[in-house]
Amino acid sequence: MSTKYVYIFSDGEGKDKNILGGKGVGLAEMAKLGIPIPPGFTITTEVCTAFYKNKGRYPEGLKEQVNKAMLKVERATGAKFGDPKNPLLFSARSGARSSMPGMMETVLNIGLTSKTISGMIEKTKNARFVWDSYRRLIQMYSDVVMEKAEGIEPAEGMGVRQHLERELSAMKKRRNVKYDTELTDTDLAELAEIYKNKVKQVIGKPFPDNAEEQLWGAISAVFKSWNGKRSVSYRRIECIPDEWGTAVNVQAMVFGNMGDNSATGVAFTRNPATGENKFYGEWLPNAQGEDVVAGIRTPNPINEETRQLDDTEGHPSLERAMPKAYVQIKKIRRKLESHFKNMQDIEFTIQDGHVWMLQTRDGKRNGPAAVRMAVEMVKSKMISADEAVSRVTPAQLDELLHPMVDPAAEAAGDFLVKGLPAGPGGAVGQVVFTAEDAVNWTKEGKKVILVREETNPEDVEGMRVAQGVLTARGGMTSHAALVARGWGKCCIVGAGALHVDIQQKTMTVDGKTVREGEIVTLNGTKGRAYRGSLAMISGAEDDKNFMAFMKLCDSVRRLKIRTNAETPKDAAKAVQFGAEGIGLFRTEHMFYGENSEKPLFYLRKMILSDNLDQRRAALNDLFPFVKNDVKKTMEVMAGRPVTIRLLDPPLHEFVPENPEERQRLAESLGISIDKLNSRAENLHETNPMMGHRGVRLGITYPEVSEMQIRAILESAAELLKEGKKALPEIMIPVVCDVAEFKNQADIVKKIYPEVCAKYGLKKIPYMVGTMIEIPRAALLAGRIAEEAEFFSFGTNDLTQMTYGFSRDDVGAFVPEYVEKKIIPVDPFQILDQEGVGQLIKFGVERGRKTRPGLKVGICGEHGGEPSSVMFCHSVGMDYVSCSPYRIPIARLAAAQAAVNEKKSSPKPKAKAKAKVKVKPRK
Amino acid sequence: MSTKYVYIFSDGEGKDKNILGGKGVGLAEMAKLGIPIPPGFTITTEVCTAFYKNKGRYPEGLKEQVNKAMLKVERATGAKFGDPKNPLLFSARSGARSSMPGMMETVLNIGLTSKTISGMIEKTKNARFVWDSYRRLIQMYSDVVMEKAEGIEPAEGMGVRQHLERELSAMKKRRNVKYDTELTDTDLAELAEIYKNKVKQVIGKPFPDNAEEQLWGAISAVFKSWNGKRSVSYRRIECIPDEWGTAVNVQAMVFGNMGDNSATGVAFTRNPATGENKFYGEWLPNAQGEDVVAGIRTPNPINEETRQLDDTEGHPSLERAMPKAYVQIKKIRRKLESHFKNMQDIEFTIQDGHVWMLQTRDGKRNGPAAVRMAVEMVKSKMISADEAVSRVTPAQLDELLHPMVDPAAEAAGDFLVKGLPAGPGGAVGQVVFTAEDAVNWTKEGKKVILVREETNPEDVEGMRVAQGVLTARGGMTSHAALVARGWGKCCIVGAGALHVDIQQKTMTVDGKTVREGEIVTLNGTKGRAYRGSLAMISGAEDDKNFMAFMKLCDSVRRLKIRTNAETPKDAAKAVQFGAEGIGLFRTEHMFYGENSEKPLFYLRKMILSDNLDQRRAALNDLFPFVKNDVKKTMEVMAGRPVTIRLLDPPLHEFVPENPEERQRLAESLGISIDKLNSRAENLHETNPMMGHRGVRLGITYPEVSEMQIRAILESAAELLKEGKKALPEIMIPVVCDVAEFKNQADIVKKIYPEVCAKYGLKKIPYMVGTMIEIPRAALLAGRIAEEAEFFSFGTNDLTQMTYGFSRDDVGAFVPEYVEKKIIPVDPFQILDQEGVGQLIKFGVERGRKTRPGLKVGICGEHGGEPSSVMFCHSVGMDYVSCSPYRIPIARLAAAQAAVNEKKSSPKPKAKAKAKVKVKPRK
Repeated sequence: MSTKYVYIFSDGEGKDKNILGGKGVGLAEMAKLGIPIPPGFTITTEVCTAFYKNKGRYPEGLKEQVNKAMLKVERATGAKFGDPKNPLLFSARSGARSSMPGMMETVLNIGLTSKTISGMIEKTKNARFVWDSYRRLIQMYSDVVMEKAEGIEPAEGMGVRQHLERELSAMKKRRNVKYDTELTDTDLAELAEIYKNKVKQVIGKPFPDNAEEQLWGAISAVFKSWNGKRSVSYRRIECIPDEWGTAVNVQAMVFGNMGDNSATGVAFTRNPATGENKFYGEWLPNAQGEDVVAGIRTPNPINEETRQLDDTEGHPSLERAMPKAYVQIKKIRRKLESHFKNMQDIEFTIQDGHVWMLQTRDGKRNGPAAVRMAVEMVKSKMISADEAVSRVTPAQLDELLHPMVDPAAEAAGDFLVKGLPAGPGGAVGQVVFTAEDAVNWTKEGKKVILVREETNPEDVEGMRVAQGVLTARGGMTSHAALVARGWGKCCIVGAGALHVDIQQKTMTVDGKTVREGEIVTLNGTKGRAYRGSLAMISGAEDDKNFMAFMKLCDSVRRLKIRTNAETPKDAAKAVQFGAEGIGLFRTEHMFYGENSEKPLFYLRKMILSDNLDQRRAALNDLFPFVKNDVKKTMEVMAGRPVTIRLLDPPLHEFVPENPEERQRLAESLGISIDKLNSRAENLHETNPMMGHRGVRLGITYPEVSEMQIRAILESAAELLKEGKKALPEIMIPVVCDVAEFKNQADIVKKIYPEVCAKYGLKKIPYMVGTMIEIPRAALLAGRIAEEAEFFSFGTNDLTQMTYGFSRDDVGAFVPEYVEKKIIPVDPFQILDQEGVGQLIKFGVERGRKTRPGLKVGICGEHGGEPSSVMFCHSVGMDYVSCSPYRIPIARLAAAQAAVNEKKSSPKPKAKAKAKVKVKPRK
Repeated sequence: MSTKYVYIFSDGEGKDKNILGGKGVGLAEMAKLGIPIPPGFTITTEVCTAFYKNKGRYPEGLKEQVNKAMLKVERATGAKFGDPKNPLLFSARSGARSSMPGMMETVLNIGLTSKTISGMIEKTKNARFVWDSYRRLIQMYSDVVMEKAEGIEPAEGMGVRQHLERELSAMKKRRNVKYDTELTDTDLAELAEIYKNKVKQVIGKPFPDNAEEQLWGAISAVFKSWNGKRSVSYRRIECIPDEWGTAVNVQAMVFGNMGDNSATGVAFTRNPATGENKFYGEWLPNAQGEDVVAGIRTPNPINEETRQLDDTEGHPSLERAMPKAYVQIKKIRRKLESHFKNMQDIEFTIQDGHVWMLQTRDGKRNGPAAVRMAVEMVKSKMISADEAVSRVTPAQLDELLHPMVDPAAEAAGDFLVKGLPAGPGGAVGQVVFTAEDAVNWTKEGKKVILVREETNPEDVEGMRVAQGVLTARGGMTSHAALVARGWGKCCIVGAGALHVDIQQKTMTVDGKTVREGEIVTLNGTKGRAYRGSLAMISGAEDDKNFMAFMKLCDSVRRLKIRTNAETPKDAAKAVQFGAEGIGLFRTEHMFYGENSEKPLFYLRKMILSDNLDQRRAALNDLFPFVKNDVKKTMEVMAGRPVTIRLLDPPLHEFVPENPEERQRLAESLGISIDKLNSRAENLHETNPMMGHRGVRLGITYPEVSEMQIRAILESAAELLKEGKKALPEIMIPVVCDVAEFKNQADIVKKIYPEVCAKYGLKKIPYMVGTMIEIPRAALLAGRIAEEAEFFSFGTNDLTQMTYGFSRDDVGAFVPEYVEKKIIPVDPFQILDQEGVGQLIKFGVERGRKTRPGLKVGICGEHGGEPSSVMFCHSVGMDYVSCSPYRIPIARLAAAQAAVNEKKSSPKPKAKAKAKVKVKPRK
C-alpha cells in the first residue's frame, strides 16, 4: 500500500495537523462539526517535503490519489472539473503546520477555460460574474504560477501583475468608471482577452486553457511558495523549521462575487487586539476573499457593536446588510470556540445568501488580548489554568510591560492622524518609507517607524525591526496588520487621511508634511499618531487581567521567582511584580552611582592601604555603610530570603584611571601620587575577568570578607531586635574549589556567635552558599556541596568561561558569528543549554547527590529569559532570579515549564526532592 | 579475637609492609632468610593511627601483646628485661611504610637502670662499655623522650641535649682527653651521675630508673615523632599521607661499642651515587649505629675498592680491619640483593666479632645511579623491563638532564674546597648559612647554596629549596646527604677543610673567606666547590645508561611522544631526544625573535589594512615566509606528523604599545599615526585571553586562514616533489563549536585540490583537527568529532577557563593559595585531574564515541609533566607533546603509566581501540 498523500476534508482529524497543516485540519474539524464547507481535499505536507527532496518531482501515486479525491468532490457537488456543461471550479491554498499569514500563495477560480466559461454562465445565469472570475483567474494565475513560482524577476519592477493592473485601470478609464464592480460582462470579457495577450507578451507563454494544467500549475505554485523569499524570512524570525513544508488545500469554489447577495469576510471570534469577548470582523459585499485580506479596500465592520472608526460610518455592517447570514455565522462562531476552546480566526463566503466557511484556525492575537482571553476563558471554565498559561507567550506578556504613550503628553501632542489600533503600545522613532530603509537604519542603531501606503507581506523584515508601523490603508485583519500584532508590534493601519509619497519620501496629512528621518510617536492602543517624541509610561502592570493572569501562573508554577536588586526602591518594585526573595544583592553596587562618594572613599582607602592595620581602619569606616545598605533592602523584603554576594570585582575597578582624579584621590588620602600609581600598576591585570576577584580577594584579604559578613549578620540582628524579619543568605562568588568556600565559611562560623552575643540573640537565621560560575565549580559541585548550603548559578560568568568569550570583547565577533550562523544566538542572551547547560546539570545533580536538600537557583541575566527559565525548571532548580521588570515573564515561563513537564510525564520530576524540606538555621 | 598489634620479627612478611613499616618488614624478611638479626618485635602502624585517634591512648590489649612478645625475645636471648642479674636491653626504632631517613626518633640501650648496671657489667665483663651505654641512654632518652616528645621548647636554644653535651665536653676537658673513647669507666660513671642531676634540673623530672617505664616512654616517643615538625614537613615534600603512621621496632640490643673487636656500619649493596655494582659503605670501630649516621665523625670506608677520598687514607677499611666479618657481610649483601632484587641499604653491628644485621631496605639513590642499576639489573636478568622502568622516578631521570659544570670552565675555576660527592650535577647560587635563610632568600627569587657545618635533619626545607648543599662534616651515608641524594640535589658533604662561622655568616678555607650572598659553584659529581659562577653544560643526555634506559621505556610504553617545536633546530634536538612527531607548531612564533622583522612587518600591514584587498596584498607578501618556515621544520621531521596550529593570539599582540615604535611603524606603512592608533584602540580588549583570537580570527578574516592553509599544503607538496616526506596536520585553535571548525575545514577542502593541481600531485597526506582548550569544546566533543580528525588538548587554556584563572594574573593569589593549602599545587604546573581532567575525559570519550579512530593528544605544558602524562595515558590518548628537553621524562612517565595499567588490570584498556587504525589521507 502506498503512502496516503491526499485526504478528503471529512477524513482528516485534528491530530493530523503536522501532515494536513492548519487550514486542512480546520476544514476537517468543521466538516466533522457539520458546519457548511465547500468540499475538497488536502495534499499533505509530506508531499511538499518529497517535492523538495526530489527536486520538484511529485511522489509516485500522487496523481491517482488526487484524481480519486476529485471524483469524490465532483460527486458531492454534482459538477465536474473541466466539464463544458456543468463545470466545477477549484481554489488551491497553502496551509502549513504553523500559520504563516500571507506568506504563501493562493489561486482561485481554477478550471475556467474557453471550454467551461459558457457552461458556467449557463449554470449561474450570471455572465458578468463569470467573466469577472475569469479575469481574476488570469490575473492571479499569471502572477503566482507563471511568474513568481518560476522565479522570473520582473524587468524594472514591472511584473505581469503590474502590467495587468495597468490594463484594468486603462479599461476603467476607457469606460469612465471608478470601481471594478461597475464594469459590465462585455467589458470584462474584453479585458480577459487583453489580459491573455499581455500575459503571452510579458511572460512569453500563453495562459493555459486547460483545467487540469491550471490545477497542477496552481498546486506546484503553492508548494514553491514555501521556499519563497517572504516565507523563508518569516520562518527565520518565527523559528519555524524549513523541513516542515506546507500542505495544499484544493477546494470547490464558492463565490462571494456572484452579486449583491454574495459577500466575503474575515472574522475573529473575539477581538484580537483587546481580547474582548465580542465577535469581531470585516466583510465586503460582492467580493472574493482576497479583496478583504489584501488590504486594497477598507472593509466594512461585521456588526454594530465592534464598529470602530468614524471612517466606516457609511459602511454597512453584515449584521444589518445580511442579518440572516450574520446570525448563522454568529452561531458557527460559538460552535467553533466551544469546540476548539480558543479564539478562532475564520474566513467565510456568502454565495447568493448561503454561508460557506472557508477556514478556521486559532487566531493570532497581541499580548493584552492573549492575556485577557486566557483569563476570561478560565473564568468561564472553558479552559484550565494550565491551558491558559500555555496560551500566552512570554513575548506577548512582554507587550503588556512595554511602554505606553503618557496620556498627559499625548493631550498636548502635535496630533497627526488617526487610524485603526492594530497593535497596542507606544512607539517613537524616525520615519522611513521602505522596509529596506527600516532594516538599514536599524543596523545603524536608529529607531524607526515604518510608514507605508498599504501593509504588504513583502515588508516583513522591515516591520520586524521597526519600533512601530503606520499605514494609510488596510483593515484590522489585513495580513500584515496580523503579522504586526503577532509580534506585539505597535501598529496603526488604515489611517485614510494620510498621503504617502514614496518617491519624495514624505507623508502629508491636512497640509502637514513629515519627511524621512523626522520623529513621530504612535499610540497603537488608540490608533493615533503624533509629530515628535512623546513621553512614555510603563505598561499595564496593574491591569486587572494582567494581575489575574499572573495569579494563574503562580497557581501552576513550581519554580520560585526572585529578583536581582540592591536598593530598597528596586526591592519594593520587585515585590510589587511578585518577587519572592532577592537572588542577587551585589555588595559593590554601593560604590557606584548615587551616594557612593563616602563608601567609595573608604573602599579606596582600604585598597591603597599598606598593611593590615591600615586596611582594618578603613574597613571600620566602611562598615556602617555596608550594614545600613544591606539592612534597608532586607527590611523591604520583610523576611523573604535575601542573597547577598560578597565583594566580586577586582580591586583595580575602584581605582580611577584618570590622572587628575588620581591626583585628587592621592591628596584626599594623604598619600603620594607615585605611591597611588604604583599600587594601581600592581593591581593591573591582563585578564581581569579571570583575575584576583571574588573569593580570591576574600582569601588574600580575609578582613574584607570579615567586615562584610559582620555587616550582614548585624543588619539582620538589628532588624530582629526591632521586631522585624530578616533572612540573609551569604553568597561567596567565583569559587572553583571547596577549600576556597570552606575558608570563607569558616569566617562566618567565627563571626556568627560574636554577633549573636553582641545583640543578645540566641539565633539569627542565615545560610551560606556559593555562586557556581566557574566551570570547575560545576564539575566539582559534589565536593562544594559538602560545605555550601545553596548554589546560585552565575550564568554570565559561566557562559564566559565555558565559551572562552569575554563579555566585554565579544562585540568583535559574536554578531558576525550569529550572522554566519556559527552560533544560533548570542549565548549571553539565551542560555546555551547544549554546552553551559551540561555544566548546570552537573552542578545541580552532583550538588544534590551530596546534599539532597541543596537550594539551587540562577542569578545570571538568563534568569529572566523564558527558554532559559524553562531550562532551569527542567534541571530542578528551586528558583530563578532576574531584574524586577523581568519577573512577570519569569513567572509565566516558570508556569509554562511546569505545564510542559506535566504534559511530557505524568509524574512530576521533583517529587523525590519535594519531601526534603530545607530550612535555614533558626 | 582482638586485633594483632604486635609481630615477632619472624612472624612478619613482606606483604605486611603497610602495617609493619619498612624496617619491620626488612627484619622479618632477614629472619626468614636465616640472616643473623637480634630478636625483637614490631608494634604496627595501626597502633600509631589509633594512638593519634585516641589522643595518645593505646588500644586495648596492646600491653599484653607486647609483654607476650617480650617473653619470646627473652626466651630467644636467654636474658630478661629489667633483670638485675642477666639483663636484656632493647632499642626502639621507628619504621614507616615509606622511608623517612632521620626524621623520626630512636632510643638505644633501653633497660639500663641502677638495678641492671651491675648485672650488665658482670655479664659483659666490660664496665667501661656499660657506663658508656648508660650515659648514652641518658643523653638520648632525656632529649628524645623527656624533652622533644613532650613538646618542650628549650629555653634560649639550650635543650637538655646541649646541656649534656657541654657536660661531656667539660668532663673531657677535666680529664684532658680529646675523644669520648678516652674516658674511663669511672669517668663515665661520674658523667652519668652529673647527667642525671642535669636532667632533673633542666626538665624538672628525674631520668626514670625503671626498665618498663623507659621502654614505654621510648615507644611513645617514637610514635610522637611521627608528628614532629621535621617529619611533617618531610611528608609534605614527599607527599606521604599523614594517616599512614609509623611502626615501632623493639629489638634486643647488640653493641658495636663493646670494644675494638666491635663495630657498627652502614652500607649499600651498590653505589647509591653512581649505581656501580660495587659494595659500598662506611663503618666505625667501637661505636653505636647513631655515630655513623649522625655524621658526627667522618667514618671509614668499608672496603678498598670503593675508598674515595684522600681524607680517608689513614682510615682502615672493614675489609682490612675485620676481614672475617667483612666477608660474612658481603655474603649477606648478595643474599639480600638476590632476594629483594633491588639495591639494599643495610645497617650492621659487629659485637665482639659477631655480625648482626639491624636493617635492610631498598636504598635511596640519585638519578644516575637509579638509571644505571635499572639498566644493569635488566641486563643481568634480575628484573624485567617493566620493573626497571618503575625503579626510576621522573625526578631522578630529570637529574641526568640537569646541567653539569663545564669541565673547561672548571679547569680555570677559583677552587675553594673538596668534599664527598654526595649528590651529582652542578649548582650555582648565593651562599646562605641557615635553612631559614635558604627558604627566605628563595622566596625573594634568589638561587642559593646552603652551607652548613654538618648536615642536619632539621634543615630539610632549606635543603629542598637550595640549588645545592655544601657541608664541612658528615659522610656519604649521613641522613641529610641521603635526603639530598633522594631529591637529586647537587650536594657535597664532609668538606673537612672548610671552616663555617655561623655567627659571622662566613666560610673560610685556606685563608679565603666567602661571605653570605657571595656566589659559589658546586660540582656535586666530583665533590668540588668553586668561588663565583662557572658555566654549565647540559647533562648526561648521551650517556650509554641513559640511552639504554630510554630504550627500555620505549619497549614498554603505549603513548607516543611528540614535541612542541617551531624551528628546524628545535625539531632536530627533539628528534635526538626521541620525538615521534611535532604536536604543536605555533605559526605565530615567526613573528617573534630572530629574523622576524620582515614577516612581522607584513603581518602588521595586514592587521592595519582597511579592506579585504589591502589585506590580501599583505597576506601575499607574508605567504612565502610562512611556507618556508613550515617547510624547513617539516623537512627535519622527515615524514613524522607535524601539527601546525593556525594563528592563535589576538591581533593587538602584534601592534607595538610604545608610541615611538608606533610612529616608526606608521611611517614605514605609509599611514597616519592617528589611523594606527585608532586601529590599535579598536583592537584593544579587556580580557584578550577570551577575546578575538584563534578560530575567531579565522572566521572574521577567512583570507588569513586561507593563506596559512595554502602555505602548509604547498610546503608539503614541495617536499613531496623533492622526493621527501611530509605529513602536516592542520590544527584549528580556540574552537568552542563544531560550526566554527567546519567553517575553517571548508577552507581546507577548497584549497587542497588547488594545491594538488598546482603541483601536479594526486594526493598530499594531511589531516585537519582541532585544539580542545575551551570547556565547551570538551563538553561538545562528540559534535566536534563529526568534523575534526584529531583532537589536541590545549591544557594551558583549558586550565585557565576551567578555573577562571588568568595565567598572566594568578601571581596575585595562586602562591598564597598553595601556601594556605586551598589548592595542592599550581594547576598550570601539574594537571588538575579532578576538574580539568573531567573535561579531558569527556573530550576523549565523546570524541571517540563519534569517531572511534579519533587521534587524541595533548600539547599544553602538562605534556611533559609526569603525573599529567600518566593521566593522559589513563584516558587513552595517543600521544603527549612537550618541549624537547622534557621528552625523556615523558617517555619514562608513559612507560610507567603502561606498567601501572598492567599491574592494575591484566587486560590493556586500549585494546578495543588498538584495532582501529587511523591513517591520514594518502
